[in-house]
Amino acid sequence: MTEKTALTPSTHTAPPARFSHGVRKGNILQVAGQVGFLPAVPGQAPTPAGPTLREQTLQTFANVKAILEEGGASWDDVMMIRVYLTDVDHFAEMNAIYNEYFADLTVAPAARTTVYVGLPAGLLIEIDALAVLD
Amino acid sequence: MTEKTALTPSTHTAPPARFSHGVRKGNILQVAGQVGFLPAVPGQAPTPAGPTLREQTLQTFANVKAILEEGGASWDDVMMIRVYLTDVDHFAEMNAIYNEYFADLTVAPAARTTVYVGLPAGLLIEIDALAVLD
Amino acid sequence: MTEKTALTPSTHTAPPARFSHGVRKGNILQVAGQVGFLPAVPGQAPTPAGPTLREQTLQTFANVKAILEEGGASWDDVMMIRVYLTDVDHFAEMNAIYNEYFADLTVAPAARTTVYVGLPAGLLIEIDALAVLD
Repeated sequence: MTEKTALTPSTHTAPPARFSHGVRKGNILQVAGQVGFLPAVPGQAPTPAGPTLREQTLQTFANVKAILEEGGASWDDVMMIRVYLTDVDHFAEMNAIYNEYFADLTVAPAARTTVYVGLPAGLLIEIDALAVLD
Repeated sequence: MTEKTALTPSTHTAPPARFSHGVRKGNILQVAGQVGFLPAVPGQAPTPAGPTLREQTLQTFANVKAILEEGGASWDDVMMIRVYLTDVDHFAEMNAIYNEYFADLTVAPAARTTVYVGLPAGLLIEIDALAVLD
Repeated sequence: MTEKTALTPSTHTAPPARFSHGVRKGNILQVAGQVGFLPAVPGQAPTPAGPTLREQTLQTFANVKAILEEGGASWDDVMMIRVYLTDVDHFAEMNAIYNEYFADLTVAPAARTTVYVGLPAGLLIEIDALAVLD
């Protein structure tokens, strides 16, 4: 697998431009910025899982995970998680959801950077990830 | 090429600090954040290609490409493109320019993350890229 | 060292969530977003090195360096440095501190991207880094 391969889980909405939801080449897997969109429904615009940080964060994790798995990886292989929030006041709640989600991790957790940026209206969180496979 | 090599295309303005426009080590190539500056003119301050998103985006792509090529890579090798915009309302137009620019890509497109940040006055877009060579 | 290993220098405060300050797997080392917190004091909340950009930048560099060294790497191995500032007006001063700090570097400097984002109150800079070891 030294060729660059696009990772496009069937559950995902089509990217809004000529990029891939994830790519793998050799043992490197990069997940594109994911947001809390529900699984794609043909003919329907992408829809966030809900208005709350919790709903969007859990859906975003699910979307990242689907891409990792499409590429033969899992959270265990993830080296870096970039979290983009829109509001500094969401940090504590995001961390609580994060810890809950990763409670069962048995390997070293990924490194992480969290910064506060602008996102399209209605979106509260965006996450991308870099994985290195065995 | 297991040594770390700086990639400094002759067209590029000198970095404003002690960093490289790009570096390659082994099969990993990292392009630093590029903006829409025109090719460097000795004795002249860096000048954006123009005030519009289109001008700056195309020039930024050209600047990223020059660094990739200096390191023996091409867009085909790019795994991740990070796009920093200053205005959520620029997303659709950036995507249109992006699709046009990458229309002829014959391999899996890179993953991408787009977020909205502050940039120095006059700059509307910044892009960096991670490539993995064969 | 093909296993993923967490890098947790003894000087560092515990991460506020289930992530690692750094991870290494094979020859890839990722440093999580570091800020200008002083070395951890048990029972005390994380404390920035001071209110100024200079104090926080130098402490942030020290924090990144400690993680690199914990993983058997040094600044020489760093491919990419991401600098997050909160104020465009800090760019020139950060560059001056950056150049001073890296004055003795004998290899190609890392690539770099600087963008302006929101950070938690009191923090002026955050830095993460990607290293590729020999």
